[in-house]
Amino acid sequence: MTATTRIEKALKASLESAESNGCPPLLAAALNYAVFPGGARIRPRLCLAVAHANGEDDASLTDAAASAIELLHCASLVHDDLPCFDNAAMRRGKPSVHRAHGERLAVLAGDALIVMSFQLLAEAAVNSPQRLAPLLQIIGRSVSAGAGIVAGQAWECESRVSLSQYQRSKTGALFAAATMAGAAAAGCGQPEVWRALGEGLGEAYQVADDILDMAGNPLEIGKPIGRDADLGRPNAMRELGMSGAIQRLENLVAGAIASIPDCPGAADLRAIIVMESQGLLPKELRAAA
Amino acid sequence: MTATTRIEKALKASLESAESNGCPPLLAAALNYAVFPGGARIRPRLCLAVAHANGEDDASLTDAAASAIELLHCASLVHDDLPCFDNAAMRRGKPSVHRAHGERLAVLAGDALIVMSFQLLAEAAVNSPQRLAPLLQIIGRSVSAGAGIVAGQAWECESRVSLSQYQRSKTGALFAAATMAGAAAAGCGQPEVWRALGEGLGEAYQVADDILDMAGNPLEIGKPIGRDADLGRPNAMRELGMSGAIQRLENLVAGAIASIPDCPGAADLRAIIVMESQGLLPKELRAAA
Repeated sequence: MTATTRIEKALKASLESAESNGCPPLLAAALNYAVFPGGARIRPRLCLAVAHANGEDDASLTDAAASAIELLHCASLVHDDLPCFDNAAMRRGKPSVHRAHGERLAVLAGDALIVMSFQLLAEAAVNSPQRLAPLLQIIGRSVSAGAGIVAGQAWECESRVSLSQYQRSKTGALFAAATMAGAAAAGCGQPEVWRALGEGLGEAYQVADDILDMAGNPLEIGKPIGRDADLGRPNAMRELGMSGAIQRLENLVAGAIASIPDCPGAADLRAIIVMESQGLLPKELRAAA
Repeated sequence: MTATTRIEKALKASLESAESNGCPPLLAAALNYAVFPGGARIRPRLCLAVAHANGEDDASLTDAAASAIELLHCASLVHDDLPCFDNAAMRRGKPSVHRAHGERLAVLAGDALIVMSFQLLAEAAVNSPQRLAPLLQIIGRSVSAGAGIVAGQAWECESRVSLSQYQRSKTGALFAAATMAGAAAAGCGQPEVWRALGEGLGEAYQVADDILDMAGNPLEIGKPIGRDADLGRPNAMRELGMSGAIQRLENLVAGAIASIPDCPGAADLRAIIVMESQGLLPKELRAAA
Protein backbone atom coordinates (compact mmCIF):
# COMPACT_ATOMS: atom_id res chain seq x y z
CA MET A 1 0.00 0.00 0.00
CA THR A 2 1.45 3.41 -0.93
CA ALA A 3 1.83 6.11 1.71
CA THR A 4 -0.95 8.12 0.08
CA THR A 5 -3.36 5.18 0.13
CA ARG A 6 -2.55 4.51 3.79
CA ILE A 7 -3.14 8.12 4.74
CA GLU A 8 -6.42 8.50 2.85
CA LYS A 9 -7.66 5.22 4.31
CA ALA A 10 -6.75 6.23 7.87
CA LEU A 11 -8.34 9.68 7.49
CA LYS A 12 -11.49 8.14 6.03
CA ALA A 13 -11.75 5.69 8.94
CA SER A 14 -11.40 8.52 11.47
CA LEU A 15 -14.19 10.53 9.93
CA GLU A 16 -16.45 7.51 9.53
CA SER A 17 -15.93 6.65 13.18
CA ALA A 18 -17.10 10.14 14.22
CA GLU A 19 -20.12 9.88 11.94
CA SER A 20 -21.18 6.48 13.16
CA ASN A 21 -21.05 7.82 16.71
CA GLY A 22 -23.99 10.15 16.11
CA CYS A 23 -22.45 13.19 14.44
CA PRO A 24 -25.14 15.67 13.26
CA PRO A 25 -25.40 15.32 9.45
CA LEU A 26 -24.53 18.90 8.50
CA LEU A 27 -21.42 18.81 10.68
CA ALA A 28 -20.45 15.44 9.19
CA ALA A 29 -20.72 16.95 5.71
CA ALA A 30 -18.59 19.95 6.71
CA LEU A 31 -15.95 17.65 8.22
CA ASN A 32 -15.74 15.55 5.07
CA TYR A 33 -15.55 18.71 2.97
CA ALA A 34 -12.71 20.05 5.13
CA VAL A 35 -10.61 16.90 4.86
CA PHE A 36 -11.38 15.50 1.35
CA PRO A 37 -10.05 15.84 -1.25
CA GLY A 38 -6.83 16.83 0.48
CA GLY A 39 -3.80 18.83 -0.57
CA ALA A 40 -0.42 17.17 -0.97
CA ARG A 41 -0.72 15.52 2.50
CA ILE A 42 2.94 16.44 2.89
CA ARG A 43 2.99 16.34 6.72
CA PRO A 44 1.48 12.84 7.13
CA ARG A 45 3.71 11.53 4.30
CA LEU A 46 6.71 12.87 6.18
CA CYS A 47 5.49 11.25 9.39
CA LEU A 48 5.14 7.86 7.68
CA ALA A 49 8.56 8.14 6.03
CA VAL A 50 10.30 8.88 9.35
CA ALA A 51 8.45 6.06 11.12
CA HIS A 52 9.58 3.67 8.37
CA ALA A 53 13.18 4.88 8.66
CA ASN A 54 12.99 4.12 12.40
CA GLY A 55 11.93 0.51 11.82
CA GLU A 56 8.18 1.04 12.20
CA ASP A 57 6.60 -1.79 14.23
CA ASP A 58 3.11 -0.44 15.05
CA ALA A 59 1.51 0.64 11.81
CA SER A 60 -1.83 1.66 13.31
CA LEU A 61 -0.09 3.99 15.75
CA THR A 62 1.87 5.59 12.89
CA ASP A 63 -1.36 5.95 10.92
CA ALA A 64 -3.00 7.64 13.90
CA ALA A 65 -0.09 10.04 14.39
CA ALA A 66 -0.01 10.93 10.68
CA SER A 67 -3.78 11.37 10.55
CA ALA A 68 -3.85 13.46 13.73
CA ILE A 69 -1.27 15.81 12.23
CA GLU A 70 -3.20 16.12 8.95
CA LEU A 71 -6.52 16.69 10.78
CA LEU A 72 -4.91 19.45 12.85
CA HIS A 73 -3.55 20.99 9.66
CA CYS A 74 -7.05 20.88 8.12
CA ALA A 75 -8.49 22.44 11.29
CA SER A 76 -6.03 25.30 11.07
CA LEU A 77 -6.91 25.95 7.42
CA VAL A 78 -10.65 26.02 8.21
CA HIS A 79 -10.23 28.47 11.09
CA ASP A 80 -7.59 30.63 9.33
CA ASP A 81 -9.95 31.03 6.36
CA LEU A 82 -12.79 32.40 8.56
CA PRO A 83 -14.11 35.90 7.83
CA CYS A 84 -12.45 37.33 10.97
CA PHE A 85 -9.02 36.14 9.75
CA ASP A 86 -8.19 35.78 6.04
CA ASN A 87 -11.82 35.73 4.85
CA ALA A 88 -10.64 33.35 2.15
CA ALA A 89 -13.17 32.44 -0.53
CA MET A 90 -11.25 29.52 -2.02
CA ARG A 91 -9.16 26.67 -0.63
CA ARG A 92 -7.85 23.55 -2.37
CA GLY A 93 -9.62 24.58 -5.57
CA LYS A 94 -13.12 24.89 -4.11
CA PRO A 95 -15.01 27.33 -1.88
CA SER A 96 -13.62 27.48 1.65
CA VAL A 97 -15.54 25.62 4.37
CA HIS A 98 -17.35 28.69 5.73
CA ARG A 99 -18.38 29.73 2.20
CA ALA A 100 -19.74 26.27 1.44
CA HIS A 101 -21.16 25.27 4.84
CA GLY A 102 -21.58 28.52 6.75
CA GLU A 103 -19.50 30.12 9.45
CA ARG A 104 -21.03 28.22 12.37
CA LEU A 105 -20.23 24.81 10.90
CA ALA A 106 -16.74 26.02 9.96
CA VAL A 107 -16.00 26.99 13.56
CA LEU A 108 -17.37 23.65 14.78
CA ALA A 109 -15.59 21.61 12.10
CA GLY A 110 -12.27 23.09 13.22
CA ASP A 111 -13.04 22.35 16.86
CA ALA A 112 -14.17 18.81 16.00
CA LEU A 113 -11.01 18.08 14.02
CA ILE A 114 -8.81 19.16 16.93
CA VAL A 115 -10.68 16.90 19.34
CA MET A 116 -10.72 14.02 16.85
CA SER A 117 -6.97 14.14 16.40
CA PHE A 118 -6.37 13.54 20.12
CA GLN A 119 -9.06 10.85 20.29
CA LEU A 120 -7.37 9.02 17.40
CA LEU A 121 -4.09 8.83 19.28
CA ALA A 122 -5.73 7.55 22.46
CA GLU A 123 -7.55 4.81 20.59
CA ALA A 124 -4.53 3.72 18.55
CA ALA A 125 -2.11 3.42 21.47
CA VAL A 126 -3.59 0.15 22.68
CA ASN A 127 -0.55 -1.96 21.67
CA SER A 128 2.10 0.60 22.65
CA PRO A 129 0.61 2.47 25.63
CA GLN A 130 4.01 3.80 26.72
CA ARG A 131 4.28 5.76 23.46
CA LEU A 132 1.01 7.65 24.00
CA ALA A 133 2.20 10.41 26.34
CA PRO A 134 5.28 11.36 24.24
CA LEU A 135 3.17 11.42 21.06
CA LEU A 136 0.51 13.59 22.68
CA GLN A 137 3.15 15.97 23.98
CA ILE A 138 4.85 16.30 20.59
CA ILE A 139 1.63 16.82 18.68
CA GLY A 140 -0.05 18.93 21.37
CA ARG A 141 2.88 21.32 21.57
CA SER A 142 2.92 21.75 17.79
CA VAL A 143 -0.57 23.23 17.79
CA SER A 144 -0.44 24.94 21.19
CA ALA A 145 -0.81 28.56 22.27
CA GLY A 146 2.82 28.53 23.37
CA ALA A 147 4.85 27.43 20.38
CA GLY A 148 2.39 25.89 17.95
CA ILE A 149 -0.01 26.78 15.17
CA VAL A 150 -2.41 28.63 17.47
CA ALA A 151 0.50 30.80 18.63
CA GLY A 152 1.50 31.39 15.00
CA GLN A 153 -1.97 32.56 14.07
CA ALA A 154 -2.16 34.70 17.22
CA TRP A 155 1.09 36.47 16.32
CA GLU A 156 -0.92 37.94 13.42
CA CYS A 157 -2.96 39.81 16.06
CA GLU A 158 0.12 41.45 17.63
CA SER A 159 1.62 44.73 16.44
CA ARG A 160 5.24 43.60 17.04
CA VAL A 161 6.19 40.18 15.73
CA SER A 162 9.45 38.30 15.35
CA LEU A 163 9.26 36.89 11.83
CA SER A 164 11.20 33.76 12.68
CA GLN A 165 9.06 33.08 15.75
CA TYR A 166 5.93 33.60 13.65
CA GLN A 167 7.01 31.21 10.90
CA ARG A 168 8.43 28.66 13.32
CA SER A 169 5.13 28.36 15.14
CA LYS A 170 2.81 28.81 12.16
CA THR A 171 4.52 26.37 9.77
CA GLY A 172 7.64 24.82 11.30
CA ALA A 173 5.95 23.43 14.41
CA LEU A 174 3.64 20.99 12.64
CA PHE A 175 6.40 19.83 10.27
CA ALA A 176 8.64 19.20 13.28
CA ALA A 177 5.76 17.30 14.91
CA ALA A 178 5.45 15.18 11.76
CA THR A 179 9.06 13.98 11.94
CA MET A 180 9.20 13.65 15.74
CA ALA A 181 5.83 11.88 15.95
CA GLY A 182 6.86 9.50 13.18
CA ALA A 183 9.92 8.57 15.22
CA ALA A 184 8.00 8.35 18.52
CA ALA A 185 5.28 6.18 16.95
CA ALA A 186 8.02 3.76 15.88
CA GLY A 187 9.37 3.60 19.42
CA CYS A 188 12.33 5.98 19.06
CA GLY A 189 13.18 7.11 22.59
CA GLN A 190 14.72 10.41 21.48
CA PRO A 191 12.29 11.89 18.98
CA GLU A 192 13.79 15.36 19.58
CA VAL A 193 16.75 14.45 17.28
CA TRP A 194 14.24 14.48 14.42
CA ARG A 195 13.19 18.09 15.00
CA ALA A 196 15.79 19.66 12.67
CA LEU A 197 14.58 17.65 9.68
CA GLY A 198 10.98 18.76 10.22
CA GLU A 199 11.85 22.38 10.91
CA GLY A 200 14.11 22.62 7.87
CA LEU A 201 11.48 21.13 5.58
CA GLY A 202 8.83 23.37 7.11
CA GLU A 203 10.93 26.41 6.32
CA ALA A 204 11.53 25.13 2.76
CA TYR A 205 7.80 24.57 2.36
CA GLN A 206 7.15 28.14 3.52
CA VAL A 207 9.55 29.51 0.91
CA ALA A 208 7.88 27.39 -1.79
CA ASP A 209 4.50 28.69 -0.64
CA ASP A 210 5.80 32.26 -0.88
CA ILE A 211 7.01 31.62 -4.45
CA LEU A 212 3.67 30.08 -5.44
CA ASP A 213 1.85 33.03 -3.89
CA MET A 214 3.66 35.36 -6.29
CA ALA A 215 4.28 33.20 -9.34
CA GLY A 216 2.04 30.14 -9.10
CA ASN A 217 -0.96 29.20 -11.19
CA PRO A 218 -4.10 29.79 -9.10
CA LEU A 219 -5.84 26.86 -10.79
CA GLU A 220 -3.01 24.51 -9.82
CA ILE A 221 -2.55 25.70 -6.24
CA GLY A 222 -6.30 25.94 -5.62
CA LYS A 223 -6.28 29.45 -4.13
CA PRO A 224 -5.78 32.99 -5.43
CA ILE A 225 -2.26 34.40 -5.73
CA GLY A 226 -0.98 37.69 -4.28
CA ARG A 227 -2.56 37.05 -0.84
CA ASP A 228 0.66 37.82 1.10
CA ALA A 229 0.83 41.34 -0.36
CA ASP A 230 -2.93 41.86 0.20
CA LEU A 231 -2.67 40.74 3.84
CA GLY A 232 0.64 42.52 4.52
CA ARG A 233 2.54 39.30 5.17
CA PRO A 234 6.25 38.70 4.71
CA ASN A 235 7.20 36.82 1.53
CA ALA A 236 10.62 35.31 0.74
CA MET A 237 10.33 35.86 -2.99
CA ARG A 238 9.53 39.55 -2.58
CA GLU A 239 12.67 39.85 -0.43
CA LEU A 240 15.06 37.63 -2.42
CA GLY A 241 13.69 37.58 -5.96
CA MET A 242 12.74 34.39 -7.79
CA SER A 243 16.20 32.86 -8.18
CA GLY A 244 17.28 33.93 -4.68
CA ALA A 245 14.17 32.32 -3.19
CA ILE A 246 14.67 29.10 -5.14
CA GLN A 247 18.31 29.00 -4.02
CA ARG A 248 17.15 29.45 -0.42
CA LEU A 249 14.65 26.63 -0.80
CA GLU A 250 17.36 24.31 -2.13
CA ASN A 251 19.71 25.19 0.71
CA LEU A 252 17.01 24.50 3.27
CA VAL A 253 16.23 21.09 1.77
CA ALA A 254 19.96 20.22 1.67
CA GLY A 255 20.35 21.25 5.32
CA ALA A 256 17.31 19.23 6.30
CA ILE A 257 18.64 16.14 4.55
CA ALA A 258 22.04 16.57 6.19
CA SER A 259 20.34 16.64 9.60
CA ILE A 260 18.84 13.14 9.26
CA PRO A 261 20.09 11.14 12.27
CA ASP A 262 21.66 7.71 11.93
CA CYS A 263 18.90 5.11 11.70
CA PRO A 264 18.21 1.85 9.84
CA GLY A 265 16.42 3.54 6.93
CA ALA A 266 18.42 6.76 6.59
CA ALA A 267 19.43 6.20 2.95
CA ASP A 268 15.86 5.47 1.81
CA LEU A 269 14.59 8.47 3.75
CA ARG A 270 17.12 10.79 2.09
CA ALA A 271 15.92 9.58 -1.30
CA ILE A 272 12.28 10.16 -0.36
CA ILE A 273 12.99 13.70 0.85
CA VAL A 274 14.86 14.56 -2.35
CA MET A 275 11.94 13.31 -4.41
CA GLU A 276 9.25 14.96 -2.30
CA SER A 277 11.07 18.28 -2.23
CA GLN A 278 11.03 18.36 -6.03
CA GLY A 279 7.26 18.39 -5.77
CA LEU A 280 7.28 21.63 -3.78
CA LEU A 281 7.39 23.71 -6.97
CA PRO A 282 6.12 22.93 -10.49
CA LYS A 283 8.85 22.14 -13.03
CA GLU A 284 8.56 25.44 -14.91
CA LEU A 285 9.27 27.41 -11.72
CA ARG A 286 12.22 25.21 -10.72
CA ALA A 287 13.68 25.82 -14.18
CA ALA A 288 13.70 29.56 -13.42
CA ALA A 289 16.45 29.16 -10.81
CA MET B 1 -6.89 22.60 50.63
CA THR B 2 -10.53 23.00 49.55
CA ALA B 3 -11.70 21.69 46.19
CA THR B 4 -12.10 25.24 44.91
CA THR B 5 -8.55 26.20 45.88
CA ARG B 6 -7.18 23.08 44.23
CA ILE B 7 -9.05 23.77 41.01
CA GLU B 8 -8.08 27.43 40.78
CA LYS B 9 -4.46 26.55 41.51
CA ALA B 10 -4.38 23.83 38.85
CA LEU B 11 -6.04 26.07 36.26
CA LYS B 12 -3.63 28.89 37.04
CA ALA B 13 -0.63 26.57 36.64
CA SER B 14 -1.92 25.36 33.26
CA LEU B 15 -2.28 28.86 31.91
CA GLU B 16 1.06 29.97 33.30
CA SER B 17 2.75 27.01 31.66
CA ALA B 18 1.34 28.02 28.25
CA GLU B 19 2.44 31.62 28.79
CA SER B 20 5.96 30.73 29.81
CA ASN B 21 6.27 28.65 26.66
CA GLY B 22 6.12 31.73 24.44
CA CYS B 23 2.40 32.47 24.11
CA PRO B 24 1.77 35.77 22.25
CA PRO B 25 0.74 38.37 24.89
CA LEU B 26 -2.68 39.26 23.48
CA LEU B 27 -3.63 35.59 23.28
CA ALA B 28 -2.35 35.03 26.83
CA ALA B 29 -4.59 37.88 28.02
CA ALA B 30 -7.61 36.45 26.20
CA LEU B 31 -6.96 33.00 27.70
CA ASN B 32 -6.79 34.40 31.21
CA TYR B 33 -9.92 36.42 30.61
CA ALA B 34 -11.76 33.31 29.36
CA VAL B 35 -10.85 31.21 32.40
CA PHE B 36 -10.72 33.71 35.32
CA PRO B 37 -12.72 34.54 37.30
CA GLY B 38 -14.68 31.36 36.74
CA GLY B 39 -18.27 30.38 37.25
CA ALA B 40 -19.24 27.82 39.87
CA ARG B 41 -16.60 25.33 38.55
CA ILE B 42 -19.27 22.72 39.07
CA ARG B 43 -17.80 20.14 36.64
CA PRO B 44 -14.25 20.07 38.09
CA ARG B 45 -15.69 20.01 41.65
CA LEU B 46 -17.72 16.97 40.66
CA CYS B 47 -14.63 15.34 39.15
CA LEU B 48 -12.65 15.86 42.36
CA ALA B 49 -15.49 14.57 44.53
CA VAL B 50 -15.81 11.34 42.52
CA ALA B 51 -12.03 10.80 42.51
CA HIS B 52 -12.04 11.21 46.30
CA ALA B 53 -14.91 8.75 46.67
CA ASN B 54 -12.85 6.24 44.64
CA GLY B 55 -9.87 6.47 46.98
CA GLU B 56 -7.88 9.05 44.98
CA ASP B 57 -4.17 8.14 44.90
CA ASP B 58 -2.77 10.43 42.17
CA ALA B 59 -3.80 13.97 43.00
CA SER B 60 -1.99 15.62 40.10
CA LEU B 61 -3.77 13.36 37.63
CA THR B 62 -7.14 14.23 39.19
CA ASP B 63 -6.23 17.92 39.04
CA ALA B 64 -5.35 17.56 35.36
CA ALA B 65 -8.60 15.75 34.56
CA ALA B 66 -10.67 18.34 36.45
CA SER B 67 -8.80 21.23 34.83
CA ALA B 68 -9.06 19.71 31.35
CA ILE B 69 -12.83 19.44 31.76
CA GLU B 70 -13.13 23.04 32.98
CA LEU B 71 -10.90 24.36 30.16
CA LEU B 72 -13.05 22.53 27.62
CA HIS B 73 -16.14 24.05 29.21
CA CYS B 74 -14.57 27.52 28.98
CA ALA B 75 -13.64 26.87 25.34
CA SER B 76 -17.22 25.96 24.53
CA LEU B 77 -18.53 29.14 26.18
CA VAL B 78 -16.08 31.31 24.21
CA HIS B 79 -17.00 29.73 20.87
CA ASP B 80 -20.76 29.54 21.61
CA ASP B 81 -20.75 33.26 22.41
CA LEU B 82 -19.24 34.18 19.01
CA PRO B 83 -21.23 36.47 16.70
CA CYS B 84 -22.05 33.60 14.32
CA PHE B 85 -23.69 31.64 17.18
CA ASP B 86 -25.32 33.38 20.16
CA ASN B 87 -23.61 36.74 19.63
CA ALA B 88 -23.59 37.08 23.42
CA ALA B 89 -22.46 40.41 24.80
CA MET B 90 -22.05 39.29 28.42
CA ARG B 91 -20.74 36.17 30.14
CA ARG B 92 -19.95 35.61 33.82
CA GLY B 93 -20.83 39.22 34.59
CA LYS B 94 -18.43 40.84 32.12
CA PRO B 95 -18.23 41.36 28.35
CA SER B 96 -17.82 38.08 26.45
CA VAL B 97 -14.34 37.20 25.16
CA HIS B 98 -14.95 38.37 21.59
CA ARG B 99 -16.41 41.67 22.84
CA ALA B 100 -13.42 42.29 25.09
CA HIS B 101 -10.59 40.83 22.97
CA GLY B 102 -11.97 40.68 19.43
CA GLU B 103 -13.32 37.84 17.40
CA ARG B 104 -9.95 36.55 16.16
CA LEU B 105 -8.54 36.07 19.65
CA ALA B 106 -11.83 34.52 20.79
CA VAL B 107 -11.61 31.87 18.05
CA LEU B 108 -7.96 31.22 18.93
CA ALA B 109 -8.55 31.19 22.69
CA GLY B 110 -11.16 28.46 22.23
CA ASP B 111 -8.80 26.44 20.04
CA ALA B 112 -5.93 26.93 22.49
CA LEU B 113 -8.02 25.79 25.46
CA ILE B 114 -9.01 22.58 23.66
CA VAL B 115 -5.38 21.79 22.85
CA MET B 116 -4.23 22.72 26.36
CA SER B 117 -6.71 20.35 27.98
CA PHE B 118 -5.23 17.35 26.16
CA GLN B 119 -1.67 18.50 26.80
CA LEU B 120 -2.44 18.73 30.52
CA LEU B 121 -3.53 15.09 30.65
CA ALA B 122 -0.46 13.87 28.77
CA GLU B 123 1.87 15.72 31.14
CA ALA B 124 0.11 14.62 34.31
CA ALA B 125 -0.03 10.92 33.48
CA VAL B 126 3.64 10.36 34.29
CA ASN B 127 2.95 8.32 37.45
CA SER B 128 -0.07 6.44 36.12
CA PRO B 129 0.60 6.02 32.39
CA GLN B 130 -1.95 3.21 32.07
CA ARG B 131 -4.73 5.64 33.05
CA LEU B 132 -3.96 8.08 30.23
CA ALA B 133 -5.75 6.38 27.31
CA PRO B 134 -9.02 5.78 29.24
CA LEU B 135 -9.01 9.40 30.49
CA LEU B 136 -8.38 10.77 27.02
CA GLN B 137 -11.16 8.63 25.59
CA ILE B 138 -13.66 9.71 28.24
CA ILE B 139 -12.86 13.39 27.95
CA GLY B 140 -12.35 13.36 24.17
CA ARG B 141 -15.72 11.74 23.57
CA SER B 142 -17.47 14.29 25.80
CA VAL B 143 -16.46 17.15 23.53
CA SER B 144 -16.49 15.25 20.21
CA ALA B 145 -18.44 15.71 17.00
CA GLY B 146 -20.15 12.39 17.65
CA ALA B 147 -21.69 12.63 21.10
CA GLY B 148 -20.03 15.60 22.79
CA ILE B 149 -20.30 19.35 23.12
CA VAL B 150 -19.35 20.01 19.51
CA ALA B 151 -22.19 17.72 18.42
CA GLY B 152 -24.55 19.53 20.80
CA GLN B 153 -23.68 22.90 19.34
CA ALA B 154 -23.92 21.50 15.80
CA TRP B 155 -27.46 20.22 16.46
CA GLU B 156 -28.39 23.92 16.65
CA CYS B 157 -27.54 24.10 12.93
CA GLU B 158 -29.95 21.28 11.98
CA SER B 159 -33.62 21.81 11.18
CA ARG B 160 -34.74 18.56 12.88
CA VAL B 161 -33.33 17.89 16.32
CA SER B 162 -34.07 15.36 19.01
CA LEU B 163 -34.27 17.45 22.19
CA SER B 164 -32.86 14.70 24.39
CA GLN B 165 -29.95 14.06 22.02
CA TYR B 166 -29.25 17.81 21.90
CA GLN B 167 -29.22 18.23 25.67
CA ARG B 168 -27.34 14.99 26.29
CA SER B 169 -24.48 16.09 24.05
CA LYS B 170 -24.54 19.81 24.83
CA THR B 171 -24.72 19.53 28.64
CA GLY B 172 -24.88 15.93 29.81
CA ALA B 173 -21.73 14.75 28.05
CA LEU B 174 -19.29 16.95 29.94
CA PHE B 175 -20.98 16.25 33.30
CA ALA B 176 -20.72 12.52 32.55
CA ALA B 177 -17.06 13.04 31.66
CA ALA B 178 -16.53 14.79 35.00
CA THR B 179 -17.75 11.81 37.02
CA MET B 180 -16.17 9.14 34.79
CA ALA B 181 -12.84 10.96 34.55
CA GLY B 182 -12.78 11.44 38.31
CA ALA B 183 -13.17 7.69 38.72
CA ALA B 184 -10.63 6.85 35.97
CA ALA B 185 -8.06 9.27 37.41
CA ALA B 186 -8.36 7.42 40.72
CA GLY B 187 -7.71 4.10 39.01
CA CYS B 188 -11.30 2.80 38.80
CA GLY B 189 -11.28 0.18 36.05
CA GLN B 190 -14.97 0.62 35.21
CA PRO B 191 -15.52 4.37 34.96
CA GLU B 192 -18.68 3.77 32.88
CA VAL B 193 -20.62 2.92 36.08
CA TRP B 194 -20.24 6.60 37.01
CA ARG B 195 -21.98 7.86 33.87
CA ALA B 196 -25.51 7.92 35.34
CA LEU B 197 -24.47 10.26 38.17
CA GLY B 198 -22.95 12.74 35.72
CA GLU B 199 -25.79 12.58 33.23
CA GLY B 200 -28.43 12.99 35.93
CA LEU B 201 -26.67 16.01 37.43
CA GLY B 202 -26.12 17.46 33.96
CA GLU B 203 -29.82 17.24 33.29
CA ALA B 204 -30.59 18.81 36.67
CA TYR B 205 -28.15 21.60 35.92
CA GLN B 206 -29.87 22.20 32.57
CA VAL B 207 -33.26 22.53 34.29
CA ALA B 208 -31.75 24.97 36.83
CA ASP B 209 -30.25 26.96 33.96
CA ASP B 210 -33.67 27.06 32.28
CA ILE B 211 -35.27 28.37 35.48
CA LEU B 212 -32.56 31.03 35.90
CA ASP B 213 -32.99 32.05 32.27
CA MET B 214 -36.63 32.91 33.01
CA ALA B 215 -36.61 33.92 36.65
CA GLY B 216 -33.00 34.61 37.64
CA ASN B 217 -31.35 37.86 38.53
CA PRO B 218 -29.13 38.91 35.59
CA LEU B 219 -26.65 40.50 37.98
CA GLU B 220 -26.27 37.27 39.93
CA ILE B 221 -26.05 34.90 36.96
CA GLY B 222 -23.78 37.21 34.97
CA LYS B 223 -25.73 37.12 31.72
CA PRO B 224 -29.04 38.49 30.46
CA ILE B 225 -32.25 36.52 31.03
CA GLY B 226 -34.81 35.47 28.42
CA ARG B 227 -32.15 34.20 25.98
CA ASP B 228 -33.87 30.83 25.41
CA ALA B 229 -37.03 32.53 24.14
CA ASP B 230 -34.99 34.97 22.03
CA LEU B 231 -32.98 32.13 20.46
CA GLY B 232 -35.96 29.76 20.08
CA ARG B 233 -34.52 27.18 22.46
CA PRO B 234 -36.45 24.68 24.56
CA ASN B 235 -36.86 25.61 28.23
CA ALA B 236 -38.09 23.31 31.00
CA MET B 237 -39.71 26.12 33.01
CA ARG B 238 -41.72 27.32 30.03
CA GLU B 239 -42.99 23.76 29.60
CA LEU B 240 -43.57 22.81 33.24
CA GLY B 241 -44.04 26.09 35.09
CA MET B 242 -41.87 27.16 38.02
CA SER B 243 -42.96 24.57 40.57
CA GLY B 244 -43.06 21.78 37.97
CA ALA B 245 -39.53 22.62 36.87
CA ILE B 246 -38.26 22.72 40.45
CA GLN B 247 -39.91 19.37 41.13
CA ARG B 248 -38.23 17.95 38.05
CA LEU B 249 -34.86 19.29 39.21
CA GLU B 250 -35.29 17.65 42.61
CA ASN B 251 -36.26 14.33 41.04
CA LEU B 252 -33.21 14.42 38.80
CA VAL B 253 -30.89 15.10 41.74
CA ALA B 254 -32.49 12.30 43.75
CA GLY B 255 -32.10 9.89 40.84
CA ALA B 256 -28.48 10.91 40.38
CA ILE B 257 -27.72 10.34 44.05
CA ALA B 258 -29.44 6.95 43.95
CA SER B 259 -27.19 5.95 41.04
CA ILE B 260 -23.94 6.36 42.99
CA PRO B 261 -22.11 3.01 42.79
CA ASP B 262 -20.72 1.27 45.85
CA CYS B 263 -17.32 2.76 46.66
CA PRO B 264 -15.27 3.65 49.76
CA GLY B 265 -16.51 7.24 49.89
CA ALA B 266 -20.13 6.83 48.75
CA ALA B 267 -21.69 8.36 51.89
CA ASP B 268 -19.50 11.46 51.79
CA LEU B 269 -20.16 11.84 48.08
CA ARG B 270 -23.92 11.70 48.59
CA ALA B 271 -23.64 14.47 51.16
CA ILE B 272 -21.54 16.60 48.82
CA ILE B 273 -24.02 16.19 45.95
CA VAL B 274 -26.96 17.15 48.20
CA MET B 275 -25.09 20.27 49.30
CA GLU B 276 -23.89 21.23 45.83
CA SER B 277 -27.32 20.72 44.29
CA GLN B 278 -28.77 23.23 46.71
CA GLY B 279 -26.47 25.78 45.11
CA LEU B 280 -28.05 25.26 41.68
CA LEU B 281 -30.79 27.78 42.47
CA PRO B 282 -30.83 30.78 44.81
CA LYS B 283 -32.82 30.29 48.02
CA GLU B 284 -35.71 32.54 46.99
CA LEU B 285 -36.35 30.44 43.88
CA ARG B 286 -36.15 27.15 45.75
CA ALA B 287 -38.73 28.50 48.17
CA ALA B 288 -41.13 28.90 45.24
CA ALA B 289 -41.45 25.13 44.78
